[in-house]
Amino acid sequence: MSTVPDFHVYDTTLRDGAQQESLNLSVTDKLAIAAYLDQLGVGFIEGGWPGANPKDTEFFARARSELKLQHATLAAFGSTRRAGARAADDPQVRALLDAQTDVVTLVAKSHSRHVAEALRTTVEENLAMIEDTVSFLVGEGRSVFLDAEHFFDGYRTDPAYALEVVRTAAAAGASVIALCDTNGGMLPPQVTDVVGEVLEGTQARLGIHCHNDTGCAVANSLAAVAAGASHVQGTINGYGERTGNADLVTVVSNLQLKLGREVVAPDRLRQALHLSHAISEVTNVVPYGRQPYVGASAFAHKAGLHASALKVDPDLYQHTDPALVGNSMRTLVSDMAGRASIELKAKELGYDLTHDTDLAARTVTRVKDLEQQGWTFDAADASFELLLREEVTGETLQYFDTESWRIITDSSGGAQPSLSEATIKLRAGGRRVVATGEGNGPVNALDHALREALADAYPELADFELIDFRVRILDASHGTDATTRVLIETGDGTGSWQTVGVAPNIVHASWVALVDSFTYGLLKRGVEPRH
Amino acid sequence: MSTVPDFHVYDTTLRDGAQQESLNLSVTDKLAIAAYLDQLGVGFIEGGWPGANPKDTEFFARARSELKLQHATLAAFGSTRRAGARAADDPQVRALLDAQTDVVTLVAKSHSRHVAEALRTTVEENLAMIEDTVSFLVGEGRSVFLDAEHFFDGYRTDPAYALEVVRTAAAAGASVIALCDTNGGMLPPQVTDVVGEVLEGTQARLGIHCHNDTGCAVANSLAAVAAGASHVQGTINGYGERTGNADLVTVVSNLQLKLGREVVAPDRLRQALHLSHAISEVTNVVPYGRQPYVGASAFAHKAGLHASALKVDPDLYQHTDPALVGNSMRTLVSDMAGRASIELKAKELGYDLTHDTDLAARTVTRVKDLEQQGWTFDAADASFELLLREEVTGETLQYFDTESWRIITDSSGGAQPSLSEATIKLRAGGRRVVATGEGNGPVNALDHALREALADAYPELADFELIDFRVRILDASHGTDATTRVLIETGDGTGSWQTVGVAPNIVHASWVALVDSFTYGLLKRGVEPRH
Repeated sequence: MSTVPDFHVYDTTLRDGAQQESLNLSVTDKLAIAAYLDQLGVGFIEGGWPGANPKDTEFFARARSELKLQHATLAAFGSTRRAGARAADDPQVRALLDAQTDVVTLVAKSHSRHVAEALRTTVEENLAMIEDTVSFLVGEGRSVFLDAEHFFDGYRTDPAYALEVVRTAAAAGASVIALCDTNGGMLPPQVTDVVGEVLEGTQARLGIHCHNDTGCAVANSLAAVAAGASHVQGTINGYGERTGNADLVTVVSNLQLKLGREVVAPDRLRQALHLSHAISEVTNVVPYGRQPYVGASAFAHKAGLHASALKVDPDLYQHTDPALVGNSMRTLVSDMAGRASIELKAKELGYDLTHDTDLAARTVTRVKDLEQQGWTFDAADASFELLLREEVTGETLQYFDTESWRIITDSSGGAQPSLSEATIKLRAGGRRVVATGEGNGPVNALDHALREALADAYPELADFELIDFRVRILDASHGTDATTRVLIETGDGTGSWQTVGVAPNIVHASWVALVDSFTYGLLKRGVEPRH
Repeated sequence: MSTVPDFHVYDTTLRDGAQQESLNLSVTDKLAIAAYLDQLGVGFIEGGWPGANPKDTEFFARARSELKLQHATLAAFGSTRRAGARAADDPQVRALLDAQTDVVTLVAKSHSRHVAEALRTTVEENLAMIEDTVSFLVGEGRSVFLDAEHFFDGYRTDPAYALEVVRTAAAAGASVIALCDTNGGMLPPQVTDVVGEVLEGTQARLGIHCHNDTGCAVANSLAAVAAGASHVQGTINGYGERTGNADLVTVVSNLQLKLGREVVAPDRLRQALHLSHAISEVTNVVPYGRQPYVGASAFAHKAGLHASALKVDPDLYQHTDPALVGNSMRTLVSDMAGRASIELKAKELGYDLTHDTDLAARTVTRVKDLEQQGWTFDAADASFELLLREEVTGETLQYFDTESWRIITDSSGGAQPSLSEATIKLRAGGRRVVATGEGNGPVNALDHALREALADAYPELADFELIDFRVRILDASHGTDATTRVLIETGDGTGSWQTVGVAPNIVHASWVALVDSFTYGLLKRGVEPRH
């Protein structure tokens, strides 16, 4: 039996996290995520429910040979035995043994109404199921953690029974009993009270498992820890059913940076942003920009008021050093910004404007003028860098000379989809090119035609891919007459960049953002213009 | 001076929420959001900082004539006067008066290091600035709220000074002093302690303003209320700088449904989902599926193990009744939730579906299918009514028969604006018409051509005006290849209506929304089709 550390973080991304809507993990995905979680330094990784589905059975089999955990211990998840059977004879319990993990986590009912209505057995038999299954697995050399499902709701309805569940599991040899707010409806003061009362009433070692239905999963987890829980469950990025589970990135960062409890080595915490984003590449869930600590916006400042003071002392305006979680402060350029923010932004991009006040002033004026017309640079770093480069070098970077372009969209008037066709005439790579592209919309067609036209002169473009395309109608009160802003995000496999275009004509705005996107990508690769 | 209610919610979406990365609101956007917030029932709406930027000055001017608030009181936001001047002579303070709101919210420094390093004045002068500005505005008949910036960090560093700031503001006549966790680094126990101590030390009426940097904005707000704060600030959907502000939807839902404190009328809370989503259409920020209470996934259950138990008693598996916030449980595919809301909406529009279960079921299925494809009827009542009418009458209302349309957009490649030209061929008023329209964008050209084509058959169209046009790229991860949703608002001087179109091609989606808009407008006027 492995020793269970005094205080630890227990990750359930691969089991409870995978319940998230539209999240679907292959066995290979799960192995990749487990390796990242190990790097983060979590204590335990719950791999899935062996026997319940073939994917999870395969995961544990492959994990034994393919997963080299440096730090974390793998746990198999399952439930207490069926009513009226023996744990030793229950195939579901045997599948837990077959997973060959040091730790088995058992889910058990602790709410008497759930025992009757969902499990359809007696409260006595439920206790017998817990006693039998826990002691059988402990006898087989496993450390057993018990997830007391619906514990908080159950405790409110029938506290005596909920306590009896905890006592029974502890007496049978469970190392930890995790109290689960399965429906996620709790608030911190209730969690504090219940954890305190259960500790007092049972002397058992307790854990906590929270969901975010009241927006309090993190605070509830911390409240349980303050009340004496020493095992904290959660998922990376807060993945999970409904509103998700407690986000382990935030929970660990708070415990470590706010409460001084070293949960993972500081070097591992510095990888939090990298690991959070790497895992979101695997899950294919777009990272949430406002995620605490590791979100793209978590240390981004927009207000001009702040930016001037930020220069004096960044700690006045940030709650912690972003480097501790691998993040960094970003200044957003916007019409709320003054010169200070633009200087800071330029510095981030490698341009020092502080000694050239004319240049700085000129850039600020140009940004403010453009933003007045509807441009926005806080979401378009690449376009801002091109603008800055123009001001610094005094010339516009052009990889090709456009002669003209034209797009035709037509429809037979029925329900069939419309097709768009774009024709571009330009000079690049020493010759005049006329190219045509089709698409299911005008911008799509334009993108295809432009790639076609530039393919010979700039084969590098083949790596570029449009990742995101957003359209905003500004001053919408003018109806279809209004100004249009298009934001484009482009990637090349190693990174991504955002550009912006503004024009009354949506197609023209898209063209501007598209040209900036290609220009910035080529510049970033060090490609020289081939006219 | 208006009376300030005992306990209230103060919304700062239009000021602090607008600090969110890539969120950029026009004056028209702000007016639309304010109207939605008023529907939600918040007590106060902070409109912006008049004088600090021309947009906010214009907002207050237009709000006076255009914004008809039923419930909320508008507040202007600004700062205490400059050091060494008189409040009465400070142009920034005068701009606050010029905004002509009942309430003015002043931001003031309460952290002595910020006074020295950011404000660059003395702690004594900072107190004088607070005293002078508050009493001047109170003397001018305003209720004054004071935002004590960086209060929690300041209180930790120099509690005596932080308390003095609160006492000074209260003595000068401020109705509420809101303690701000400006950097967002607090956890609930700290908030509880500080609010309790400040209440005891000052007897002032306190408010709370939280950011979500530790993932605890909601819990911190509730902790402050439990400790005695009676004014809660936040933003809709938690918009705001960095990780955002406390999400008012979650805060209000928790206060009302978990803590039994009636903050808004229950009927208003039932609109929470609708209003949250309507505002995200205005901000063009994609709604967060895992948002508590109103997120698309907030009451979504992955089918399987619990399905039968869910049928027996859904309350066993949900922390609150989703209908209370206008949401619904998503596993129960078989109508109930969906049908109820569609019947309700139909009733609003004058159709009674309750006695025709076939019709209701058919409509639900069609709406669900369309929403699956990206349509949204929340923000497009007119398109919904046309759909409903189709189901009720069994026929599609058509004022003309489209043969075909074609749009050409071209550009000389330079900086000159692109022109679009649309040609439409259709039958109306007994004859075939071929009409051409020009515009500064494809949709604008299409609108002009369609009006031209229908001018003889339907002179009523001359009164119609497009007042809003919004584009949302769905499934944006496909880049320019994705599905496009277009929402159009049309007015005729007596009212306005919204329609929706969805298609891969943005022009085609616009065409669908445009045709619905003309059709609904003619129907509403009682015009018979003239084929």
